[in-house]
Amino acid sequence: MMIIMRTEATQSQIASVVARIEKQGLRAHISHGAERTAIGAIGDGRLINRDTYILLPGVDRVVSISRPYKLASREFCPEDSGFPVDGVHVRPGQVLLIAGPCAVESRSQMLEVAQAVHEAGAHALRGGAYKPRTSPYSFQGLGKEGLEILAEARELTGLPVITEVMAPEKVSLVAEYADVLQIGARNMQNYALLRAVGESHQPVLLKRGMSATIKDLLMAAEYILSHDNERVMLCERGIRTFETATRNTTDINAIPVLKSLTHLPVILDPSHSTGHWEFVSAVARAGIAAGADGLMVEVHPHPEEALSDGGQSLRPKRFAELVEEVKSIAEAMGRKVPPQPVPKLED
Amino acid sequence: MMIIMRTEATQSQIASVVARIEKQGLRAHISHGAERTAIGAIGDGRLINRDTYILLPGVDRVVSISRPYKLASREFCPEDSGFPVDGVHVRPGQVLLIAGPCAVESRSQMLEVAQAVHEAGAHALRGGAYKPRTSPYSFQGLGKEGLEILAEARELTGLPVITEVMAPEKVSLVAEYADVLQIGARNMQNYALLRAVGESHQPVLLKRGMSATIKDLLMAAEYILSHDNERVMLCERGIRTFETATRNTTDINAIPVLKSLTHLPVILDPSHSTGHWEFVSAVARAGIAAGADGLMVEVHPHPEEALSDGGQSLRPKRFAELVEEVKSIAEAMGRKVPPQPVPKLED
Amino acid sequence: MMIIMRTEATQSQIASVVARIEKQGLRAHISHGAERTAIGAIGDGRLINRDTYILLPGVDRVVSISRPYKLASREFCPEDSGFPVDGVHVRPGQVLLIAGPCAVESRSQMLEVAQAVHEAGAHALRGGAYKPRTSPYSFQGLGKEGLEILAEARELTGLPVITEVMAPEKVSLVAEYADVLQIGARNMQNYALLRAVGESHQPVLLKRGMSATIKDLLMAAEYILSHDNERVMLCERGIRTFETATRNTTDINAIPVLKSLTHLPVILDPSHSTGHWEFVSAVARAGIAAGADGLMVEVHPHPEEALSDGGQSLRPKRFAELVEEVKSIAEAMGRKVPPQPVPKLED
Amino acid sequence: MMIIMRTEATQSQIASVVARIEKQGLRAHISHGAERTAIGAIGDGRLINRDTYILLPGVDRVVSISRPYKLASREFCPEDSGFPVDGVHVRPGQVLLIAGPCAVESRSQMLEVAQAVHEAGAHALRGGAYKPRTSPYSFQGLGKEGLEILAEARELTGLPVITEVMAPEKVSLVAEYADVLQIGARNMQNYALLRAVGESHQPVLLKRGMSATIKDLLMAAEYILSHDNERVMLCERGIRTFETATRNTTDINAIPVLKSLTHLPVILDPSHSTGHWEFVSAVARAGIAAGADGLMVEVHPHPEEALSDGGQSLRPKRFAELVEEVKSIAEAMGRKVPPQPVPKLED
Repeated sequence: MMIIMRTEATQSQIASVVARIEKQGLRAHISHGAERTAIGAIGDGRLINRDTYILLPGVDRVVSISRPYKLASREFCPEDSGFPVDGVHVRPGQVLLIAGPCAVESRSQMLEVAQAVHEAGAHALRGGAYKPRTSPYSFQGLGKEGLEILAEARELTGLPVITEVMAPEKVSLVAEYADVLQIGARNMQNYALLRAVGESHQPVLLKRGMSATIKDLLMAAEYILSHDNERVMLCERGIRTFETATRNTTDINAIPVLKSLTHLPVILDPSHSTGHWEFVSAVARAGIAAGADGLMVEVHPHPEEALSDGGQSLRPKRFAELVEEVKSIAEAMGRKVPPQPVPKLED
Repeated sequence: MMIIMRTEATQSQIASVVARIEKQGLRAHISHGAERTAIGAIGDGRLINRDTYILLPGVDRVVSISRPYKLASREFCPEDSGFPVDGVHVRPGQVLLIAGPCAVESRSQMLEVAQAVHEAGAHALRGGAYKPRTSPYSFQGLGKEGLEILAEARELTGLPVITEVMAPEKVSLVAEYADVLQIGARNMQNYALLRAVGESHQPVLLKRGMSATIKDLLMAAEYILSHDNERVMLCERGIRTFETATRNTTDINAIPVLKSLTHLPVILDPSHSTGHWEFVSAVARAGIAAGADGLMVEVHPHPEEALSDGGQSLRPKRFAELVEEVKSIAEAMGRKVPPQPVPKLED
Repeated sequence: MMIIMRTEATQSQIASVVARIEKQGLRAHISHGAERTAIGAIGDGRLINRDTYILLPGVDRVVSISRPYKLASREFCPEDSGFPVDGVHVRPGQVLLIAGPCAVESRSQMLEVAQAVHEAGAHALRGGAYKPRTSPYSFQGLGKEGLEILAEARELTGLPVITEVMAPEKVSLVAEYADVLQIGARNMQNYALLRAVGESHQPVLLKRGMSATIKDLLMAAEYILSHDNERVMLCERGIRTFETATRNTTDINAIPVLKSLTHLPVILDPSHSTGHWEFVSAVARAGIAAGADGLMVEVHPHPEEALSDGGQSLRPKRFAELVEEVKSIAEAMGRKVPPQPVPKLED
Repeated sequence: MMIIMRTEATQSQIASVVARIEKQGLRAHISHGAERTAIGAIGDGRLINRDTYILLPGVDRVVSISRPYKLASREFCPEDSGFPVDGVHVRPGQVLLIAGPCAVESRSQMLEVAQAVHEAGAHALRGGAYKPRTSPYSFQGLGKEGLEILAEARELTGLPVITEVMAPEKVSLVAEYADVLQIGARNMQNYALLRAVGESHQPVLLKRGMSATIKDLLMAAEYILSHDNERVMLCERGIRTFETATRNTTDINAIPVLKSLTHLPVILDPSHSTGHWEFVSAVARAGIAAGADGLMVEVHPHPEEALSDGGQSLRPKRFAELVEEVKSIAEAMGRKVPPQPVPKLED
């Protein structure tokens, strides 16, 4: 059961709800959101008397939540949640386009892509400074230098930046440069990392693990949410199956299933979920048609020279075409591709 | 290597190509299509001298095909193939809508659905007279009586009928009543049945097995094609994965992958591929956006009373809404939902 | 609920049980076993009054079965079931060794393997006369000629023969030659075929489909059992997963799970479940250690020349070593590898 | 290519090999093992002249390694590797038995289990102080207190302790108490953590991720090995498949496949790989029969009260029976269950 406090609830009102919960032999879990505080009462549900709480001062409503993911569930928040990301809004009914290279390889490469995807209509930049690579002998990313290049690309284009963080001790460094922290598929159940990005209070894009069920993904999101970070986007990026014609199998079902179970925004990454550039656009269109709130697409000016994942990257020209296709489908569904963020003027 | 004969090639010209192939120590495989005969030269490819054949009388062109599925491959036929099905055309660029109940349960149920989906805009009717059921104790379908009801539904609406055939010895009976023979997922590699429907020369809708790779599906189609039946549609209906939130995992990647590998029409069955009616429309839209040539959707007037698969059936009203959604997306992509077949006048 | 009749129950006693079931608004399903008749009462279980039946003449016992597979369940038959197969007994506590080539390729090949595996200690011969091949252009087996060769191999060695049947209309032909009818993985849910082998009353070896759950396998067995054929062996042959280092993934868990759910004998096919000869022996040993009732192993005198599946075939010498390893493990577990069948004397 | 230095090679000899590698435009990767230093030459293999290196002072041998995992491969080290773990040897041909509860729940629980599994014949203790739990609201382990209890259990029994570490910043703390650091399945590709345990130079037990291929597992081991830690054991703990009768699917094939590809010891965890205590013993026996170097088994004195994974835990009595079964099978295969470590006397 979740007790949702009013916006203006005081610390002592919160404390007295907690005290009541504990007196009943239950455990209280407090989540301080940007606008509201929610208090979970965890334990044997039969002990809980809903009416006790609804009358306490400062309480807005009491929600009983049948799902194991509480803060992530639709029961907790029936409306789609949205939130601002430096200069752009993740908003229900709108389609967010994130694009950029798999890895930041050099200043010139990153700035070239950034400008190209900005021109094509993207709302945010992606690019890996720290790369999780299967082999210890492969290119592992430019690290801090990569973060600096991303910041420069943001300055150039006005687009917010999303980049992966791979270890709890790097969260504060990455958060200095990035607008959105990405948790990669391999780290979806790295709980120390989930806690750390929760505590960072930065927006997070959480990728589904390659053998994670939809429920696993929501439980991973719950780790972040329960550490007082409300700004979480989920990202379907394909699951591992027996099919070898594509790198992964896009679980397109996951889009409507997630939209029915959670209020969190749902993004599709058709680059990883297919693994071949020639299938990216078709699957990207499918994602929008299925109701995804956005796309994250790998774009590289010279895919044949990419240090990682070149085979699944679109050229800027093809990405620009995809943006048009997405706009048509979004409109056909009564949705919008919102305007791009405006670069801040230097004063 | 495939040697494609001219439309007007004579039997003796064909025979002399075959003789040449066999003289080279290779095996000849003849496929008589409706319009052309193709002769495969099977064996060690290095032995084949392409130039030898191109000059033989009656030969149109010689195609070397690297794929193990020959007649199904894009190399064999670079254009999308289409074909007429009683009163309606399966045609590139058009979206075919097949709808109806999982099983024919009674005359009144089938006729009610048939009229409803006809009004909503469907181009063809589905309905199972023979049902493959996991349990020997479950309803196994009405059999011949079901076929008769389907024929009546066709007469009533003018819509062609598609229904499953489960055993070689039933092919001729089912073909008497049905316009399209469906091979179910469980029988995708039932080679005796594939041969039998090949030899029937009826249009076939071949469903992907639940653990069949895309290549397996194309090899199964090749069995039918190589028994002189060119009119094959492929149907993605979800694959088996670890995810349990849905009945199957729709392999949306398979749509563009199949369109790149084969010229055969590709249909999506979002009812089986999701298993829950509330996700059917989203995934149906995704399929069209990904480039599918059509949809096959389960519709039942009273899903709660259905003898099988009620939980994944749309009500007629929801199906009618889906038809509108599909039209919008198809138009956004420059494609069309074609007109419905016109009922034949009774003289 | 199942009503098990006494051995000496009369037809009229059976008929009166059936009448009682139908009077209660339920459906009766009769299975005539070799020794007993079992009558299932199918429908709403709450309607069934157990006491009504136990007192009827000819009734031995009444068993309520919670599983959807009735005749296959341990609840129906708490003891492991065993049965004779021409000259050898499939018996609880004993380890049955079936060996032979993937396909019967020629008389000399088959007879050579047959003698070699007989000498090594096998109890039964395998060899495919009809081969389910992914490609219509691959070797499809010798057909009837292959059956005749198998019969000759049986005469030579005294070992019973197991071979695959792929279509209902071939069941009676194959049953003329083979002691055990094999249903291949691709046909596990070919219900017309399951019915046909059920009605043949020949022993059947039913292979698990490559994406069939354990429950699916038991439901498939139920089709055969419910068509009055009690002599069914189940065969684990690997399932399809994301792992590509081996052809399939041996589901070793399935051995103890099946032994807990069903009374039917469980065989492991380590050749298909690994797909590489170098892993066959290790997995074969594992199967016996996990409690399998037998093994089916591909053996070929010249694997490099095999027309199919050469890479997963053991040479006879390696098979003979495996037999010794299996004996050691079986003994360590208090089980036996039984004596081989004795060739019948020609009078 | 790997250049293996002699035991007595000097720093300057190593430096001159590295200089030569870099001069050829390749990258040098140095691994300082306990007994030898290995230098990988990474880059375009065609540039490498093997003969150049073999003659350099201090070089023992030059090995060309075709696998992407270098230090983990059989090519690098053809013999099975073994190593001491406080008081017990992980040694080829011997079977190591690790047992204990899923989580350390209390001092009394842990000491009770420790004594019981010690009496039953275990060689090492397991028990989680930090628990990776799907839900943020579940018991997350006793943390440092759990480590102290484990140390006490080691003192009591003389058995070395293995426990999971979940975050890089906890590695030095856990290494103070534990003899072997466990990397859990969810962290198999947590590269920051792999590096940290590599640099700790403690023995590591690396569990296979639930959708990791065998190659992925070896690449993860390579991360640890390439950070100068030779003492790595691999642990198969089941993979995720469509089968739901068991928690995971034990990939028994992985045992012989790993033994063929790598020199590292291979352990099986039948508790997680089945998820049900009644199937643990059968699969444990199978693992040994397939060639595993050891087992890690969950044992709990009162499974029905366990805070996590009670359903897959054996009672001590059943574990003692399993030890006897394992001994019989190991002996039947010419292998040994070695003696237990002797508790150190307190002076």
